[in-house]
Amino acid sequence: MITSQSPLCERIRAAKGERPSDLVLKNCRIVNVFSGEIVEADLAISGETIAALGQGYKGHEEIDIQGLYVLPGLVDAHMHIESTMLTPANLARALVPYGTSTIIADPHEIANVLGINGVRFMLKQSQGIPMDVYFLAPSCVPATDLETSGARLDCKDISELASEDRILGLAEVMNYPGVINCIDHILEKIRLFCDNIVDGHCPGLSGPDLQAYVCAGIGSDHEAITIEEAREKLRLGMMVMIREGTSAENMEALLPLVSPKNSHRFCLVSDDLHPLDIMERGHLNHVLKKAVQLGLDPVLAVRMVTYNPAAYFGLKGRGAVAPGYRANLAVVEDLESFEVKVVLKDGKIVAREGELVSGVFEHNEIQDISVLHSMRVAELSPESFEIPERGARARVMELIPGQITTRCSQYPVKTYNGKVISDLDRDILKIAVVERHRASGRVGLGLVKGFGLKSGAIASSVAHDSHNVIVVGVQDLDMFMAVTEVIKMGGGMVVVEGGMVKSALPLPVAGLISTEPLETISVQLQEISSLVKDMGCALKEPFMCLSFLALPVIPELKLTDLGLVDVKKFQIVPLFF
Amino acid sequence: MITSQSPLCERIRAAKGERPSDLVLKNCRIVNVFSGEIVEADLAISGETIAALGQGYKGHEEIDIQGLYVLPGLVDAHMHIESTMLTPANLARALVPYGTSTIIADPHEIANVLGINGVRFMLKQSQGIPMDVYFLAPSCVPATDLETSGARLDCKDISELASEDRILGLAEVMNYPGVINCIDHILEKIRLFCDNIVDGHCPGLSGPDLQAYVCAGIGSDHEAITIEEAREKLRLGMMVMIREGTSAENMEALLPLVSPKNSHRFCLVSDDLHPLDIMERGHLNHVLKKAVQLGLDPVLAVRMVTYNPAAYFGLKGRGAVAPGYRANLAVVEDLESFEVKVVLKDGKIVAREGELVSGVFEHNEIQDISVLHSMRVAELSPESFEIPERGARARVMELIPGQITTRCSQYPVKTYNGKVISDLDRDILKIAVVERHRASGRVGLGLVKGFGLKSGAIASSVAHDSHNVIVVGVQDLDMFMAVTEVIKMGGGMVVVEGGMVKSALPLPVAGLISTEPLETISVQLQEISSLVKDMGCALKEPFMCLSFLALPVIPELKLTDLGLVDVKKFQIVPLFF
Repeated sequence: MITSQSPLCERIRAAKGERPSDLVLKNCRIVNVFSGEIVEADLAISGETIAALGQGYKGHEEIDIQGLYVLPGLVDAHMHIESTMLTPANLARALVPYGTSTIIADPHEIANVLGINGVRFMLKQSQGIPMDVYFLAPSCVPATDLETSGARLDCKDISELASEDRILGLAEVMNYPGVINCIDHILEKIRLFCDNIVDGHCPGLSGPDLQAYVCAGIGSDHEAITIEEAREKLRLGMMVMIREGTSAENMEALLPLVSPKNSHRFCLVSDDLHPLDIMERGHLNHVLKKAVQLGLDPVLAVRMVTYNPAAYFGLKGRGAVAPGYRANLAVVEDLESFEVKVVLKDGKIVAREGELVSGVFEHNEIQDISVLHSMRVAELSPESFEIPERGARARVMELIPGQITTRCSQYPVKTYNGKVISDLDRDILKIAVVERHRASGRVGLGLVKGFGLKSGAIASSVAHDSHNVIVVGVQDLDMFMAVTEVIKMGGGMVVVEGGMVKSALPLPVAGLISTEPLETISVQLQEISSLVKDMGCALKEPFMCLSFLALPVIPELKLTDLGLVDVKKFQIVPLFF
Repeated sequence: MITSQSPLCERIRAAKGERPSDLVLKNCRIVNVFSGEIVEADLAISGETIAALGQGYKGHEEIDIQGLYVLPGLVDAHMHIESTMLTPANLARALVPYGTSTIIADPHEIANVLGINGVRFMLKQSQGIPMDVYFLAPSCVPATDLETSGARLDCKDISELASEDRILGLAEVMNYPGVINCIDHILEKIRLFCDNIVDGHCPGLSGPDLQAYVCAGIGSDHEAITIEEAREKLRLGMMVMIREGTSAENMEALLPLVSPKNSHRFCLVSDDLHPLDIMERGHLNHVLKKAVQLGLDPVLAVRMVTYNPAAYFGLKGRGAVAPGYRANLAVVEDLESFEVKVVLKDGKIVAREGELVSGVFEHNEIQDISVLHSMRVAELSPESFEIPERGARARVMELIPGQITTRCSQYPVKTYNGKVISDLDRDILKIAVVERHRASGRVGLGLVKGFGLKSGAIASSVAHDSHNVIVVGVQDLDMFMAVTEVIKMGGGMVVVEGGMVKSALPLPVAGLISTEPLETISVQLQEISSLVKDMGCALKEPFMCLSFLALPVIPELKLTDLGLVDVKKFQIVPLFF
């Protein structure tokens, strides 16, 4: 039963002005997501919740906001924590100062390595931190049968996850061919969440195929890259999540579609965020700044990263600055720079001027150390990377600048002693994917054009979506050494040159995530990046580029532990013609 | 598990065009609530659900819509079925031809008479009909302790109702003083629905009291009558339900507040609908027509009676014309007259040109006949209505034209043989409320000015909120006879003149609802109305006016079975000074 000491009664009495509030923010310019206005008022907070916006409220603590703008805490409706290489707690440490109070994450990377235990790990590591982390149950683990993943999530697993408090729905259903061809286990997973949220992912899907995908109950999409594509999805009732992150920047193309009349059907999301991007730009504060620069009404922009995602995911009491809503707030300098001055979570100040307030994070140890031992690899030798010459011409994955797609090209091979070797003149390098979940000893071998390395090798255990170990290099020995070092660290990124490990970033959690904070990772990443550049690679993000070369759902030619994949045919093809 | 014959697979295949749809509506102008546009397309329906909007779909049945406008089935977010005097099934028969596919009803009238059994009766009687009827659990039964109700709904009852499928939340929390004064059982009822919907009702509430009410978790209000009141509620995050029904017409005052930027925070609702209004005007189709006449963008107007209420109540798959949404549709002539030509419910045509399609309603017998026997009244005589003279001046309820409020006036009494009698010169009539739930024999007695009757008496068992029997008249004998006739019918409305029952409308279900269809009730009501007019009463709706004279929460002076209530003091006061 409710007593007079309950938070609800205290809040009601604070709102009436019968008792002082716990905290009053004076002289706020509140971005009102309901009325679409800026409203000048004081903000009275009782416990974790907003009690009132008005004048004359007294507080045990009072802070003069001096006319700064008060936004609801920012909500990212779609992101993959693993891309940031941070644990959920370390990610929160990084994002909270930028005003983020809530993220909805799809943990499909870790699920591909560790299955349901990976998702449970993410749930556990995101408890008790001053950022609300919700998850969706990964729908497509493994992504395909053309590679060896560490785990599968079947309908039983998904059904177990559905009963977890912070699992809001089914994560991006990337297997759209599976949906529109009525593959039973895909539809069954959708059925499990038919009363909740089912997120979509359907790049370029259009016409009757898109209708079929949507009519199955898919509620959103974040893959539109043209205004025509976004308009078609909007009209069919999809929540259009405009992606503005490291992997894609779609705001410039898509924002012209947004109007006051349809703005309730858009969110702004990051999807994948690289650690260095977070360091340089921030998070949704950067997205807001850019959106307004691109001409979007600031109030609509704010709504697209607060109320809209909260409403879409049914997060009651989140996404607005109003009585009864959680006191998750981002106080910003103005509605142009969106420079974040103060951040409140559940009524407490958690960051000021870009710095966390001390004490808001408890030490967040990794309890389940099994996640740190995900590497199971059969014995390797430099010979594991040899490619016997079996023809004069080979299929080569040719990089397309700025894209994660590749071209399937044909080139004559360069050989030595009956083995294919890297051809520096043509910039064709050897590339390999080493199966690392089941110690099968499988190594997929191929050739890639456009990487630019003139010496050495780089290897990584971040290789979408199954996260086997991928390596590209000039010499077999360097490739072998790089992979060996990745395995030794329990996962990570490694640069080897001349038989020596030059730099390494350990990612011991599932081979995907560091245990270090953003600042440490950033330094390591910059070092790695600069070394790889010195070795001749001109790509902006060589490791990100590498990680997508193993993803057999993105055209045209990709490499997995099972061999070369012709993505259009969706089958394994030989290296030689 | 999903099979290839499941409705989902059939729908997906229909959307892809691999199989014919069950029904295709050709040449539609679809009101797209997402994009805010009118989109020309064919509409493919598979089973109960929309499969696709596009071109070239084939159907087992195809209908050329010839460019008419296709709206989502209309949704009334707030109404009381009892006001229509119709059973849920008979109400559906009346509303479906006007394009209504969903209503959210607060059954508090019947709950005041029959308690939780009344709500269960409404749930049962609204099953299996081609209109979706959802309910909210009545929050304030009885409304006050200043009258005798037939039942109470305590927290345990509310908690039981919360587990019912079609109970979406807590109904309008009219006891706003209870909320802001932290009355424990009120807050406990709110707590039971804290993860769902809690509807509000707070006429004129403003400032800190409104903040307190909203911060308790109240999500909506339908009582605003001025633009300032509505703006304050909008800013605080309430869903503003603009009422346009028989009891109040607030659109003209409030629509100027609606803009494309804030329109997602408004619904249009009817609240109370008189049977004759349904006959004359229709339902939300009339509201749409008037809204557009008043200058509202038709697409925004449509959204306010479709997607907005569906989203607010979390009704997934309702409120839009899009793939995966229920095929609940209203096809209208144009976006000015909103004349409804065809209505579909769950993919089937249920009405054409204002007429139900035959066979869509099964016979809907009342199973639980206990609801037909709700009258428990102690023996009465004409003397029960005598008022002994105990002073020279009395408190008189004075009607205010067009309002449900009254003025508390003071007049000298007219007497005969030591008894107070009606004073036709001053238009002061005797009025009584007879307790009818517990056979207590209690009769509250008073005087009313402004009714205009020159002879006879009228009595009704519809008397908000406890629905005792209320009677107004010139002679005690006629009053006695009118009440007696009401009791004999098990409830209803009666006109007596010169010792004879002139006309009667039986309302045997809880004394509130007829078992007859709208057409029959309308004839009876018109007859009654015309008789009452002939007896001198110039009020537009004499029985509705009468029904509110017993409601002790509306100022200033009201009458219950316990006596006269001074609403401002919230206490019983004597008739004489």
